Amino acid sequence: MSKNTETVTIAIIGMNRIGKVHYQNLSSMVNVKIKYICDVVADQSWADLYPDVEKIVTDYHEALKDPDVQAVLICVPTDLHPKITMEAAQAGKDIFCEKPVGFDDDQIMQAYHTVQETGVKFATGFNRRFDKNFRRIVERRENGELGDEQILKITSRDPEPPSLDYINHSGGIFMDMTIHDFDMARYITGQEVDSVYVAGGVMVDPQIGKAGDLDTVLTTLVFKNGMLGSIDNSRKAVYGYDQRIELFGSQGMAQADNVTDTTTTYSGAQSVESDKPMFFFLERYLEAYRKEIESFLDAVRGKHEVECTFADGIKAIRLAQAAKESALTKKPVKVKDI
Amino acid sequence: MSKNTETVTIAIIGMNRIGKVHYQNLSSMVNVKIKYICDVVADQSWADLYPDVEKIVTDYHEALKDPDVQAVLICVPTDLHPKITMEAAQAGKDIFCEKPVGFDDDQIMQAYHTVQETGVKFATGFNRRFDKNFRRIVERRENGELGDEQILKITSRDPEPPSLDYINHSGGIFMDMTIHDFDMARYITGQEVDSVYVAGGVMVDPQIGKAGDLDTVLTTLVFKNGMLGSIDNSRKAVYGYDQRIELFGSQGMAQADNVTDTTTTYSGAQSVESDKPMFFFLERYLEAYRKEIESFLDAVRGKHEVECTFADGIKAIRLAQAAKESALTKKPVKVKDI
Amino acid sequence: MSKNTETVTIAIIGMNRIGKVHYQNLSSMVNVKIKYICDVVADQSWADLYPDVEKIVTDYHEALKDPDVQAVLICVPTDLHPKITMEAAQAGKDIFCEKPVGFDDDQIMQAYHTVQETGVKFATGFNRRFDKNFRRIVERRENGELGDEQILKITSRDPEPPSLDYINHSGGIFMDMTIHDFDMARYITGQEVDSVYVAGGVMVDPQIGKAGDLDTVLTTLVFKNGMLGSIDNSRKAVYGYDQRIELFGSQGMAQADNVTDTTTTYSGAQSVESDKPMFFFLERYLEAYRKEIESFLDAVRGKHEVECTFADGIKAIRLAQAAKESALTKKPVKVKDI
Amino acid sequence: MSKNTETVTIAIIGMNRIGKVHYQNLSSMVNVKIKYICDVVADQSWADLYPDVEKIVTDYHEALKDPDVQAVLICVPTDLHPKITMEAAQAGKDIFCEKPVGFDDDQIMQAYHTVQETGVKFATGFNRRFDKNFRRIVERRENGELGDEQILKITSRDPEPPSLDYINHSGGIFMDMTIHDFDMARYITGQEVDSVYVAGGVMVDPQIGKAGDLDTVLTTLVFKNGMLGSIDNSRKAVYGYDQRIELFGSQGMAQADNVTDTTTTYSGAQSVESDKPMFFFLERYLEAYRKEIESFLDAVRGKHEVECTFADGIKAIRLAQAAKESALTKKPVKVKDI
Repeated sequence: MSKNTETVTIAIIGMNRIGKVHYQNLSSMVNVKIKYICDVVADQSWADLYPDVEKIVTDYHEALKDPDVQAVLICVPTDLHPKITMEAAQAGKDIFCEKPVGFDDDQIMQAYHTVQETGVKFATGFNRRFDKNFRRIVERRENGELGDEQILKITSRDPEPPSLDYINHSGGIFMDMTIHDFDMARYITGQEVDSVYVAGGVMVDPQIGKAGDLDTVLTTLVFKNGMLGSIDNSRKAVYGYDQRIELFGSQGMAQADNVTDTTTTYSGAQSVESDKPMFFFLERYLEAYRKEIESFLDAVRGKHEVECTFADGIKAIRLAQAAKESALTKKPVKVKDI
Repeated sequence: MSKNTETVTIAIIGMNRIGKVHYQNLSSMVNVKIKYICDVVADQSWADLYPDVEKIVTDYHEALKDPDVQAVLICVPTDLHPKITMEAAQAGKDIFCEKPVGFDDDQIMQAYHTVQETGVKFATGFNRRFDKNFRRIVERRENGELGDEQILKITSRDPEPPSLDYINHSGGIFMDMTIHDFDMARYITGQEVDSVYVAGGVMVDPQIGKAGDLDTVLTTLVFKNGMLGSIDNSRKAVYGYDQRIELFGSQGMAQADNVTDTTTTYSGAQSVESDKPMFFFLERYLEAYRKEIESFLDAVRGKHEVECTFADGIKAIRLAQAAKESALTKKPVKVKDI
Repeated sequence: MSKNTETVTIAIIGMNRIGKVHYQNLSSMVNVKIKYICDVVADQSWADLYPDVEKIVTDYHEALKDPDVQAVLICVPTDLHPKITMEAAQAGKDIFCEKPVGFDDDQIMQAYHTVQETGVKFATGFNRRFDKNFRRIVERRENGELGDEQILKITSRDPEPPSLDYINHSGGIFMDMTIHDFDMARYITGQEVDSVYVAGGVMVDPQIGKAGDLDTVLTTLVFKNGMLGSIDNSRKAVYGYDQRIELFGSQGMAQADNVTDTTTTYSGAQSVESDKPMFFFLERYLEAYRKEIESFLDAVRGKHEVECTFADGIKAIRLAQAAKESALTKKPVKVKDI
Repeated sequence: MSKNTETVTIAIIGMNRIGKVHYQNLSSMVNVKIKYICDVVADQSWADLYPDVEKIVTDYHEALKDPDVQAVLICVPTDLHPKITMEAAQAGKDIFCEKPVGFDDDQIMQAYHTVQETGVKFATGFNRRFDKNFRRIVERRENGELGDEQILKITSRDPEPPSLDYINHSGGIFMDMTIHDFDMARYITGQEVDSVYVAGGVMVDPQIGKAGDLDTVLTTLVFKNGMLGSIDNSRKAVYGYDQRIELFGSQGMAQADNVTDTTTTYSGAQSVESDKPMFFFLERYLEAYRKEIESFLDAVRGKHEVECTFADGIKAIRLAQAAKESALTKKPVKVKDI
C-alpha cells in the first residue's frame, strides 16, 4: 500500500463540540481508523453513538499505550493541552491539537521542546487556514498579483457571545477569538507582526465587562516589513458570522467576502434581499474543518509537512498576549518571539 | 466659431412629459438656444415656466417659418409625427422625433421619403441606445470579446402600467413598450431580425385585456444570421423598472444589470438588503436622455452622423407589427423590410 | 431500530459516471449498505476500487434475486431503463432511476404501469430539484412572497458539448439536456405546461448539426394557468456551467444566480475579477446529488413520499417530445399528458 | 419672488481645479448669477472661457466691495483661506470655503470669531457629506436601524499620489487627505472623537517620505461615546478611487460600497469581470459637488441651515493635528476641542 493511501489509526481525546466535528469528518473518510474515543465522561451508551469506534475509554492513557495508534487529536479544555501533548509526544504519537495550544507559557514551551525532541508531528488547529476563500487570497499574493503588501484588513465578528461561564474560562477575547485572526494575519500575509495596538470596549454585554473581558475590539498591527493591519472584532453581529479578509498591495487587492447559504435573492416592493452570512463557524468552516484534518492525516502519512505548526500556535499566542497588554496599557506593545 | 461648438437654435414641438425632459436637458447645455416652445395649450403663464425661451406659441408653423430655427424636436402624440416631420423637412429643419415615428404606415413612408428627398437630418428618439451600461455590451461585442453572437436576452418590465386612457392611444404594448426592446435587439447585436414569435397574456390588469391589449409578453426573435433572442415584458414589476440585457456569444457573455440609486446595503437580523432598481425611465435613463440630445445636436452641427436613424425607427415598427400579428395568429411571423 | 434510521440495503446497477457519483455519496452515508455493484464490464479488479461492497457482479439479476436488497439504483444507458425497472418492480425492489426514464414510449408506459401495480417506490433522478438555491425559489413561492406567478426564466448552458458519440445516443438535446429544465419548469412553478415553441440552431459545432441535433435552443413555455416561461440552452459557455432560474410574480421576483467556488475577488488595474460559475454538474450539484439519494433512502424507509415521481419523469419526456416536434414544425406544439 | 427660488449673486475666488468644478455646476443651475471670477492670473482671454460671467478680475476685493454680491466661494490655496474669510465676512458676504479652512491655528480662530461676530453664513467644503451612498448610512442610523453604534470603518484610497510639489504644500496626508475621512467619521456617526492612534508608513513613493510625509496610514479612532473607528488610507490604489464606509451597530450594519461607471459585467474564459471603482473624486463625487453647492445656495437663501459648518471644518483639523502628533509620538493622542 502506498504511503499516500495508508490507513491512519487515531484516537480522539476529548469529545466536546469540536471533538464531535472532527469525529463527523473522520467517520466519512476512507483510510482512517478511529480506534479510540477518550473522554472522562464517556460511558457504555456511547457505543451506540459511535458505532465505528473500537474502544471508548475514559482514560486517554490507554490510547497512548496502544502501539496501533499513530496519531491523536487533542480536543480537551485548553489548560490540558500541554500536558497531553507531552505525554503523546513521549508515546511517539503524532499530534493534532486544538487552538490555543495552551494557557501557561512555561507549560507550552515545555511541550514545544518535548515535541521537538521526540520528533513527532504536531499540527495546530487553526481551521481558517483551510478556508478556500482565504486560500485564494494567499494564491493571489504568492502569484505576485498583489505586488508589495501594504494593508491587511480582517473583520471577524461572531453572531452571538458565548455563555459567561465559557467566557470565564476562555482566556479572554484575544486568546479565545482574536487568536484566529492573529493566525490569519500571519498566514494571509506570510509576514510576522512587530507590534500591536488595541482599542477596545464592552458594548455587547456589561456582564462580559464585569468578567474582566472586552467584547468589541479594534487591533492595529504593524508588521516587521512595515506593512499595516487592522482587525475588528465583535462578540455579536445580528446578521450572522462576519468573516471577511482583504489584502491590499501595490498591484491590486484581494477580498474574501462572507459566504451565504444560497445565491438566491428576492426583489420585493421594498428592497432586494439576499442571504445573511452563514450563521456561525460550524456552518461557515464545515469544509475547512474537513480539509484541516485531511491535511493532518496526509502529514502523518508523510505526504507533506504539517501546514500549521506548533510554532504557529505559539506565535498566535504571543500576539494575543501583546494585545492583552496593549488593551491594559493603552499603548502599542512589541510582540515577543517564541 | 468652429462647427463643433456652434450654437444650435431649436424649437420644441409638444410640451408633455417627454418634451419637458428634453427641455430640462437643453436648458442646462451650452451652445443651444431654445427659441420656440410650441404647444396647442400653451398660454401666457408659460413665460414664467420657461424664462429662457424666446417665443412660446400654440402653432408650430411659426417655428417652421423662422429661418433662425435649425432643428425641431417632435414630442407631440404619435399620430402627428409623420405630418410634422414632412412639414419640418420641407422647411429644411433637422428633426429629432420621439418614438414611434408614427402609426400609419403610408404616412410614415411618405415622411421617410420626404426626409430623404429634402436631405434634412432625422433622429429617432430611442433613448436606451445612449445608456452607458448597454453601450458597454456593444463595446465588448465590437471588440470581439463575445466571439460569434448566439443568444440575446432582454428583460424589460415597467414598475406600473400606464392609465387605461394612455393604453387606448398607445398602439398596444408592442408599439408602445416592446418597441424599445426591438430597437435594443437590433442595436445590441448589430443584426437584423428575421422572424418573431409571441406568447402573451393579461396578468396585470383585466382592463388592459378588455382594451384589446396584452400586459405580459414573451417574444422570441430569430435573427437573419441564425442567432436567437428573447424579450420578456411586463407592465408591472413591484420592485421597480427592470431593465437588463445579456448578450451571449462563443467567447463570452456581457450582461448589463439594473441600476440602483445607491451602493449602500443593510445587513439586518433577517437578510442583507440592497436598493431596488431605479423607479422608472425618468430616473434610469436620465443621463441617456441627455446624451441622446447631445448626440442629435452634434449631428446637426455635422460632427457625426445621426446615431439612430429614421430607418431604425421604421424597422422597430416592423418588428412591433410582426409581434402583434404573431400574438394574434399564435405563429411565428416574418419581419417585413422597410 | 426506528424506521427513520433503518439501514437500507441497495444495489447499484450500472457503474458509469453517474453510478460512481451515487457510489461516492452512498459510501460516506451511515445506515446504507451497498451490497451489490452490477456492471456488464465489472471484473475482479473492482474489488479494490469498491472495498465496502459485498458483491460485484456482471449480471444485475443476481441482485434482484437477493431478498436482502431493498432498493436498486438504475444507472445504465437510457434504453435499458424500462426493462430493468420492470424486472426490479416485479422483484419488489424500490427503484431510483436516472433520467430520462426511457426512450421508447410503449416501454416507458409498460414500466410505469408495472410500478403502479407492484406498488414499489420509484424516484426519477432529477438532481436539480435538490439544489438549495432553486429550493429557495420554491420556498418563496410557497410562502406567497411572489404573488401570482407570471414569468419563469431558466438559463441552462453547459461548459462544453459532450462527445459526438454521446450525442448520437443521447436522444437529442431536448431529451438529454433540456429535459432537466423541463422538470425544473414544473418543479419551480408547481404548474403544468400547456404548449411549447422552440427556436433553435447549430452554433457550437457543425458536427452536432450533421448528427441531426441542435446545440443552441430557445424554448417558450405557455403554462396551463396562462403564465409564460423561457428556457435558453447552449451546449457551450466558455465561462462555465450557467445555471440560473428566475421566477417573476405579481408580488416579487426570486432569482437563483450561479454558484462560484469562492467569494474572493481581485481588484486589479483593469477590472474587478470574480470567480466564474463552477465548472459543470459534478461540481455545481455535488450536494444536490447527495440530497437526492438521501431523499430516496428516506422514501424507502417510509419517512416521506418520493419527491420526484415516475410521473414527473414521464411528464418531462412529454415536454421534450413536444419541443422536438416544435423544432421540426417551427410551430407551437401542445404537450401531451402521460 | 419667493425666498426659495431667489437668484443668488456670487463670486468665485480662485479658479484652479476645484474652482472650475464649482463653476461648471453653478453655470448649469438656475437662479444663480456668477457675477465675478477672481483669480490673480486671470486675463482677457478668460472672457471666452467663462462667457456667462460678468466680471473677470485679478483682485477679489472688487467682488467684496460690490453690494450685489451675496456670497463668495473661496477656492484659493489653503493658507489664504482665513484672510479672505475675514475680509469677506467683514464685507457681509456669505462664505463657502474649501477644505481645510486654513493651516495656521491662530488665523483660523481669528477668522472663526470674525464669522461669528459678523453673523455671515459659512460652509466648509466637505463634499463627501453630499454623497448619496454615505447619506443612506446616516439615514439608516437616524432611523434606528443600526441600534447602538459600535464600529465605524472607512477605507479611503486615492488612485495615484499627487505631485511632490503638491505634497510639499498640502500640509501632509492628514491635513490634505485623511481630513475628509475625519469629517466623515463625525458625520456618519454623529459622534465626536476622543482620541486617535496612527500607524503609518511610506510604501508608495520614497520621495513622499523624504518630503517628511506618509503615504499609507491606518488610524484608530476612539469616540467619546466609547465606540471605535478605523480609517485606512493609501495614496495609490491601482484599481481606482476606493471609497467605502461601513457602520456597524447592535441592530445591523450599513455599508456603502464603491461606485462604478456601469453595471455591465463580462463573463469570459478566465473570470467574471466588473468595472473598477470610478477613477477619482471628480468622477465619484460629481453629483456630491453639485449638491454641496446647491445646499450652500439654499442656506444663503435662508431655506435651511448650513449643512457643514465652520466648526465642522475646525474639528476635522483638530483630528488631523492629533493624528499627526500620534504618527510622530507613536502613542494615542487626545483630540483637542475647537
